[in-house]
Amino acid sequence: MKESLANTALHAQLSATALLERSRDLCMPRLREAVSRLASPMDMVAAYHFGWTDRHGKPTIGDGGKMVRPALAALSAQAVGGDPAAGSLGGVAVELVHNFSLLHDDFMDGDQIRRNRATAWTVFNPTLAILTGDALLMLASEVLLNSPAHSTSLHDRARAAQRLTTASRRLIDGQASDLSFEHRDRITIQNCLEMEGKKTGALLACASAVGAVLAGADDATADALGRYGHHLGLAFQAVDDVLGIWSDPEVTGKPRWGDLRRRKKSLPVCAALAEGGTASQRLADLLAATHNGDHEDEQQLAEQASLIEAAGGRAWAEGEARRQHDKAIAGLDEVTMPEGVRASFVTLAEFVVNRKR
Amino acid sequence: MKESLANTALHAQLSATALLERSRDLCMPRLREAVSRLASPMDMVAAYHFGWTDRHGKPTIGDGGKMVRPALAALSAQAVGGDPAAGSLGGVAVELVHNFSLLHDDFMDGDQIRRNRATAWTVFNPTLAILTGDALLMLASEVLLNSPAHSTSLHDRARAAQRLTTASRRLIDGQASDLSFEHRDRITIQNCLEMEGKKTGALLACASAVGAVLAGADDATADALGRYGHHLGLAFQAVDDVLGIWSDPEVTGKPRWGDLRRRKKSLPVCAALAEGGTASQRLADLLAATHNGDHEDEQQLAEQASLIEAAGGRAWAEGEARRQHDKAIAGLDEVTMPEGVRASFVTLAEFVVNRKR
Repeated sequence: MKESLANTALHAQLSATALLERSRDLCMPRLREAVSRLASPMDMVAAYHFGWTDRHGKPTIGDGGKMVRPALAALSAQAVGGDPAAGSLGGVAVELVHNFSLLHDDFMDGDQIRRNRATAWTVFNPTLAILTGDALLMLASEVLLNSPAHSTSLHDRARAAQRLTTASRRLIDGQASDLSFEHRDRITIQNCLEMEGKKTGALLACASAVGAVLAGADDATADALGRYGHHLGLAFQAVDDVLGIWSDPEVTGKPRWGDLRRRKKSLPVCAALAEGGTASQRLADLLAATHNGDHEDEQQLAEQASLIEAAGGRAWAEGEARRQHDKAIAGLDEVTMPEGVRASFVTLAEFVVNRKR
Repeated sequence: MKESLANTALHAQLSATALLERSRDLCMPRLREAVSRLASPMDMVAAYHFGWTDRHGKPTIGDGGKMVRPALAALSAQAVGGDPAAGSLGGVAVELVHNFSLLHDDFMDGDQIRRNRATAWTVFNPTLAILTGDALLMLASEVLLNSPAHSTSLHDRARAAQRLTTASRRLIDGQASDLSFEHRDRITIQNCLEMEGKKTGALLACASAVGAVLAGADDATADALGRYGHHLGLAFQAVDDVLGIWSDPEVTGKPRWGDLRRRKKSLPVCAALAEGGTASQRLADLLAATHNGDHEDEQQLAEQASLIEAAGGRAWAEGEARRQHDKAIAGLDEVTMPEGVRASFVTLAEFVVNRKR
């Protein structure tokens, strides 16, 4: 029994890897081609940010992110009988918006490390990081709307651009909420979930629908696929929030305690504060006593992490990841799709919830 | 004779004022409605930036810019027999992109004053100014693509969005060049004109074409109108460059010597350096001896301005404004349009070249 479970886990792992590899193969040439259209020095800043080159422009064997979003876009085209390649156009656009937000957010959040490397705004300067982000955001629209001689009609590309625009605006709203929460002591779980729905859910919803739109699906079908993506996004972010406190920095490529140091009101923190017991109260006192910019030492941050766990914040967030995962899977039943495509959506959802980075 | 010229100048002035007033009346409600859709606190930052409120959100009788771009958009719809109101949708979108660039550029350039008021990034903080700029950029696409129940087809709105995307990318490229020029001692006039074509010409070209596209014009007609806007943009920028050195800060709402202090390689500077005579050489030496971040005193900056003028930089830029103005007007002959619309385009071009702020 144990061996069989392990085999299943291994099988799912491989399938997710295979899916993400396929997505990488489909999207990477288009993504690189799009980025190569940027004017100097933004092309260099972007190539560094994506992990394709070092700070001097020398090619590296980079990591470049998980490419979950392009994989969803390819699957969403297949879900409605389209070619995954048609969906990959949307995947490239979504990946460009995602990386626009990373470039801007890293500066806004003061984050110095991402994917085990110095963030672009620290290597170059804030101005170039922001300008490159701006360019990636426009490049995303360009990929959808201005690609020459593309087989998808301008009408369907405009529908895809409508979804991407809405998702990008929600993502920006979510970042505004996230930043404002850092200055507030009490954020309800509901506040946090709403913020994460915008910051992460909206773009994953778009990724899960955009391929279908580009393949000519109607809005109702695309909306249903989008709901899978929305819940998957909330699951993704709940896992991110747990990793942001309890993960191994060697594995995530981000510094330990980063979220706590920045007083982020992530799900585990909000859930722990809402619990109200002794550990919860002690955590609230500790957070009220320190302020943004205070240099909290490792021991204090470790104590915060212990209190969050003791007050049930970690368990709640892990449970929430599972609950959102289940809602995502349930949402798949709304759309009639080939069994293999459905299985792939399920595999990606499993990957998102079980990932360690 | 003199009196008749003065009357003509007065008449043109009034007509330009009337055109800009009409554009304000058409666009302002839509612009305000779009901005009101922003989430807090970006709605407040944007309202402050547009001059509608003070830093505490209290309504003010603000300036809010000249609204040249929306006026061009309305005219471009009329040029092809459309309703100016149809063009104003494009005008709102272009104005949003323009203000995205002001919010970001003011931070990147370190500008502390605009329209006689503290810039948004100094009143709020860089993060909120950037985030609000991001939101305005997406709002621009949203206005074109997602406006509900609009009479223009999605196909034509997508064509308009294609132009806006291309223009926005060129604008971002232009800002990258402009910034890089600050660190270089020698920039040719050609380099400078190319940069200004991207930074200012592209968005005015879009403004002059987008209304026609939304009114259903074909691409060739829109491109021809865009060429008028491109040259008008170069004239606009040449005037801006002259005002950036020799204008009255009380009138422009910007600090005196701002462009020189920032070592901007504007047209008068490039033309003066290219001239090669004694004053030109002395200017080159002076610029080479000082570096970014040096606190140059008023006297040094005044000397730079005198040398630029002595080397013919001012006269060259003023001549260039007139040359680009003439090219813009000549471009109007490519499109058959009602005589009144043509006269209005001419009036706006006169206004752009003769403005004092």
